[in-house]
Amino acid sequence: MNDVPRNDLFLRACRREKTERTPVWIMRQAGRYLPDYRAVRAEYDFLTMVKTPELAAKVTVQPVDIIGVDAAILFSDIMVIPEAMGMHLEMVEKRGPVLRDPIRSSASADALRIPDPANELSYVLDGIRATQELLDRRVPLIGFSGSPWTLFAYMVEGSGSRDFRHAKSMVYGDPDLARRVLDKITQAVGDYMVAQAEAGADALQIFDSWGGALPPEQFAEFSLSYIERIVERLRSTGVPVIVFCRGASHSYGRIAESGCHVVGVDWTTGIDDARKAVGNKAAVQGNLDPTILFAGPEKVREGVADVLRRVGRGGGHVFNLGHGILPETPVENVHALIRAVADLSPQYHEG
Amino acid sequence: MNDVPRNDLFLRACRREKTERTPVWIMRQAGRYLPDYRAVRAEYDFLTMVKTPELAAKVTVQPVDIIGVDAAILFSDIMVIPEAMGMHLEMVEKRGPVLRDPIRSSASADALRIPDPANELSYVLDGIRATQELLDRRVPLIGFSGSPWTLFAYMVEGSGSRDFRHAKSMVYGDPDLARRVLDKITQAVGDYMVAQAEAGADALQIFDSWGGALPPEQFAEFSLSYIERIVERLRSTGVPVIVFCRGASHSYGRIAESGCHVVGVDWTTGIDDARKAVGNKAAVQGNLDPTILFAGPEKVREGVADVLRRVGRGGGHVFNLGHGILPETPVENVHALIRAVADLSPQYHEG
Repeated sequence: MNDVPRNDLFLRACRREKTERTPVWIMRQAGRYLPDYRAVRAEYDFLTMVKTPELAAKVTVQPVDIIGVDAAILFSDIMVIPEAMGMHLEMVEKRGPVLRDPIRSSASADALRIPDPANELSYVLDGIRATQELLDRRVPLIGFSGSPWTLFAYMVEGSGSRDFRHAKSMVYGDPDLARRVLDKITQAVGDYMVAQAEAGADALQIFDSWGGALPPEQFAEFSLSYIERIVERLRSTGVPVIVFCRGASHSYGRIAESGCHVVGVDWTTGIDDARKAVGNKAAVQGNLDPTILFAGPEKVREGVADVLRRVGRGGGHVFNLGHGILPETPVENVHALIRAVADLSPQYHEG
Repeated sequence: MNDVPRNDLFLRACRREKTERTPVWIMRQAGRYLPDYRAVRAEYDFLTMVKTPELAAKVTVQPVDIIGVDAAILFSDIMVIPEAMGMHLEMVEKRGPVLRDPIRSSASADALRIPDPANELSYVLDGIRATQELLDRRVPLIGFSGSPWTLFAYMVEGSGSRDFRHAKSMVYGDPDLARRVLDKITQAVGDYMVAQAEAGADALQIFDSWGGALPPEQFAEFSLSYIERIVERLRSTGVPVIVFCRGASHSYGRIAESGCHVVGVDWTTGIDDARKAVGNKAAVQGNLDPTILFAGPEKVREGVADVLRRVGRGGGHVFNLGHGILPETPVENVHALIRAVADLSPQYHEG
């Protein structure tokens, strides 16, 4: 276990311990909206940045230095797992990640490998160590992975999709094959996240970006049940686990029952309703609409005030957006967000 | 008012009257999955088909003849309104509709016209009359429009969008301008839908395809409140009104309170939960996941059985998909869907 970071607000909020104010970080905070990130990106392509520990560490720490967030999240990509399992990954401008030869047969499922994180994914673990060096215990570092279902969806489609018809056709048409692929991914993700904690990650987030592509019943069976297995495996690491399923507001209560520490809430639900569903089983994280960051500092402040008011007293809240920050977001409005959380949240933590 | 169609199951279900079985139609049923549609489309571009009453009527009736649905829905497009309001519309292959000079200023908002349906949209009204002639009262004909918010979203973005940042920035940053534009669109849509009913549409559906792009509170203020005004205006026409807001499962109860006859349910919610939220205020329509139509006839039948079981007894259900049918859907599976509804639904209407 690491020493406690000097600013440990985030870790305490994850564990629903008392804090002086609400901690805040921002999904995709190491990203294109920051000129300092774009300066690095101008010199290296995306996957080179992901795979070079010093570069990953550098952009991971930027928002801590520039924006003043209460946690860093490792600059990486969820697609490192499909690649480590043997698929060919390419980043295509304006289209995003593309995986060659998508998994649509028993043979291609059998060919998937369970990677050894210390081997195929050593650059991620080295990135965590390099980042911790730069952070020097100022704030905690969050590691992450895509959820099994979300990785499955990409691996079966071969890319992003509007409707995930191939992935869902397998769920509906050949559920046994889908389960076999999901089992393998779950093994790989579990190994990977345990290794991240052992390399020094202070917390871990599971991103189920495409959980909302499934109806509630299929979500429970083909996404959440695999997340539960990973959360269970991560218990021994002792680090807090955040589960963020986008578009799955129908299941916040069930997600909380997975044993995770924090339920990520997207912007499509009132966070007061999400907190009711979660009850006293977990903390909540979220959920300001990222597009409000285009409307000017005063509107951002009003938005922050509204989220804090809906959460109310009692702690157990990590402030965040309800989805990743958008590339063209004006940086001044991100500063306004951090300032507003600092100014407006202490009143909910008094006494 | 029209004579009652020989098959009036759909109209009775909309009004929650007794039926012998559950009626069924399919969103985008006149579309690319049908070889007969593609044959017409090979000869004419999309907008020519929309604007030529005989062609629109021809493809509108195809699914009645070929698939055996219980209602026809006019082949048209929601983008006819922005064009009639003065914007330049183009259909761009693989990108969809593109509107030149999106509405982002007070001046461009002021320049929007309220069209006279009998003039700028006469081809739609002629299309309704031509379709009714071909249908010869076999089944009812549904007319439709985009909701004010959904049209607004396109008109401010200029095209489809992943995040609708321009439209939402206006909602957050300049709500008064957003309301002015929405007021104008609401006037145009209201006039247009009244004219459709007068031209012979037997029912009307409002498509709020992008309601889910707004958080619940903004959905209520910037989408649903304008839909309510249209539903109120349509009351005098006497035709049933269906409101389908995609991604707005948080608000099914409120939608039912608009006074509409039917609440459209997307596939992201169990229709049993939707029916609970709607209560005895309206019928429900939906909600089979369109991707199940790629999984083979048996899986389709299981899916249909599941939806019918969740709805249960008591009527007030129009069977449909929970989103538009996908272009490559195998036609045999669509036949399987219609057969399954015919076979499996009567047991829920006995006694």
